[in-house]
Amino acid sequence: MDRDKILLTPGPLTTTLRTKLAMLKDWGSWDTDFNAVTASVRRSLLDIIHGHDSHVVVPLQGSGTFSVEAAVATLVPHDGHVLVLDNGAYCKRAVRLTQLMGRRCTVLPFDEAAPVSAAALADQLKADASISHVILIHCETGAGVLNPLQEVADVCAAHGKGLIVDAMSSFAALEIDARKVRFDALVAASGKCLEGVPGMGFVFIRKAILEGCAGRSQSLAMDLYDQYIYMEKTTQWRFTPPTHVVVALAEAIAQFEEEGGQPARLARYQRNYSTLITGMARLGFRPFLDPAIQAPIIVTFHAPADSRYEFKRFYASARERGFVLYPGKLTQVETFRVGCIGAIGPREMEQAVHAIAGALQDMGISSAAPAH
Amino acid sequence: MDRDKILLTPGPLTTTLRTKLAMLKDWGSWDTDFNAVTASVRRSLLDIIHGHDSHVVVPLQGSGTFSVEAAVATLVPHDGHVLVLDNGAYCKRAVRLTQLMGRRCTVLPFDEAAPVSAAALADQLKADASISHVILIHCETGAGVLNPLQEVADVCAAHGKGLIVDAMSSFAALEIDARKVRFDALVAASGKCLEGVPGMGFVFIRKAILEGCAGRSQSLAMDLYDQYIYMEKTTQWRFTPPTHVVVALAEAIAQFEEEGGQPARLARYQRNYSTLITGMARLGFRPFLDPAIQAPIIVTFHAPADSRYEFKRFYASARERGFVLYPGKLTQVETFRVGCIGAIGPREMEQAVHAIAGALQDMGISSAAPAH
Repeated sequence: MDRDKILLTPGPLTTTLRTKLAMLKDWGSWDTDFNAVTASVRRSLLDIIHGHDSHVVVPLQGSGTFSVEAAVATLVPHDGHVLVLDNGAYCKRAVRLTQLMGRRCTVLPFDEAAPVSAAALADQLKADASISHVILIHCETGAGVLNPLQEVADVCAAHGKGLIVDAMSSFAALEIDARKVRFDALVAASGKCLEGVPGMGFVFIRKAILEGCAGRSQSLAMDLYDQYIYMEKTTQWRFTPPTHVVVALAEAIAQFEEEGGQPARLARYQRNYSTLITGMARLGFRPFLDPAIQAPIIVTFHAPADSRYEFKRFYASARERGFVLYPGKLTQVETFRVGCIGAIGPREMEQAVHAIAGALQDMGISSAAPAH
Repeated sequence: MDRDKILLTPGPLTTTLRTKLAMLKDWGSWDTDFNAVTASVRRSLLDIIHGHDSHVVVPLQGSGTFSVEAAVATLVPHDGHVLVLDNGAYCKRAVRLTQLMGRRCTVLPFDEAAPVSAAALADQLKADASISHVILIHCETGAGVLNPLQEVADVCAAHGKGLIVDAMSSFAALEIDARKVRFDALVAASGKCLEGVPGMGFVFIRKAILEGCAGRSQSLAMDLYDQYIYMEKTTQWRFTPPTHVVVALAEAIAQFEEEGGQPARLARYQRNYSTLITGMARLGFRPFLDPAIQAPIIVTFHAPADSRYEFKRFYASARERGFVLYPGKLTQVETFRVGCIGAIGPREMEQAVHAIAGALQDMGISSAAPAH
């Protein structure tokens, strides 16, 4: 039975058939019809953050990480100094790409089970005036922690520092209002909470800093300023766009708007999250994070303490039942992750819990209660 | 009448419905089923160049230009010196990305209406021993010139220089046999003559030089060595792959193999090319290039000398008839381009010529004979 599996991961996600059907057509990348799709996607993205007055949005080919790297390369001057607020795996990736491109980088480490601290950031900015930019991961999917975007943005604004936000897994689900939150760049991608297919990212850049970005990037492909200027002038992408991915995103955005936009999407994901948490608790599973700091995006669970538990078998067994789980990304404790996002609702989450119960039974585990 | 238009461009191309239908499914990027698709695509790509003994292939997210930049960043040491054999727009792009990333770059200029010269290359390599790498565009789609890959590769081999080939628009259509042609890297992409959809590139890297590439790239996202090592270790992509693009490519490759591989694809494109050239000659159109150096990939035609000719109107008129043409990319003469590649045959080329005849009539032009 080759039914499509439900993807309970941080992306790629389960998308609607309508979104995928949009890919059954070929588009010329130079053609006006396609340029109109690109323009419409860009308008809609700015709508979502209420950013038409303050920001532009620049789409970029590749995965979300390409867009994060492009944002750092385009915004941070060669003699800039980046501070990364580090509470997880995606923060460490931001550190690595910043260092590789030769920008000075300092890490402010936090516990991976807790949000970063805006107060600690303020102290660090006072202590080191050379810091020019701060990188924050809004929702750290390594563990699933929601970081305090507003507070961090306020501290950056007060100190006149540039803020680069990786909002990969939060954008379109959690509220981000450019009229209230001041950021220089915010990065997300097609295949996350907008429920498009993977293959492109996009970066919101604050208009006030845009001109200063000219000529900073040492990468041609990742130069967001150059991409922006070219797109404004020609309405086209600089290099071949992933045309099918772009039109699928346009179709996904139409459904996002029909659903009721970000508040409705968040409400559905919250229902998914509660359904998951309640069901998993019944099976004895304990979430890794305090619910107060948990984003309803992806949930890290402790693995059962039972010696018969093995992630590979657990994964295979849930998968046979039609649900694709995600491995844990924490170094200290054994965990696994379950996503709450994608074109799925509470029904799918109930069935996912049922499949996980079956997977436990397959391994002969009666309760998933973790060790203490 | 919203019928799909035929794309007569250097890509994105017209693809088969079967290729597009492969995108109607969501795949987990961590999942074994998807990893098997990636592995199969990589095996097939190596088959095409008979490269299993000599090369590895590394897929990369993004457009073909991302892969070209990644190849230069990964292969050329920081103190390396790149010589670009320049006879067109894509050569100039290679120069720009090499210079931007801070690698020393010398340009050996040639006429855009002629192939580059292997003899001139040999002279240049004798004159400047500091050159470490040579970049060649196999088929320069700026004008459509076929460059002498074998001769250039032989000169590079004789001088012990690394050769990086941009084979974007030739790969899978023109013969490239890694057992006969020595290159350090060769770059192509999903949306060209393999007739997949755009969204990923791939780079063949010679095994003998692979280990030396560790740690060279200043870009995390574009580090092909890192991508390779991670993929070998885990069977997965380092960062989110464009899953739908990858499975469409797998399906496109299956059809490529069923058609009879590279020789059969070339034969079809040659039939497309002859049909186009013959029909266009009947209308009075003269190709820009000498047929002896013309690749059967994309043809540059002189614009009609008639003062009533205007590319925008011409394009719109052919487009209304269902055919998407491509603008010229030459600086000295007014031209336009017509692609011969994609999931189309001589029937479509006949109809394209017919549509172009109609477009001429719309502008009141009786013959497209160019000025002398």
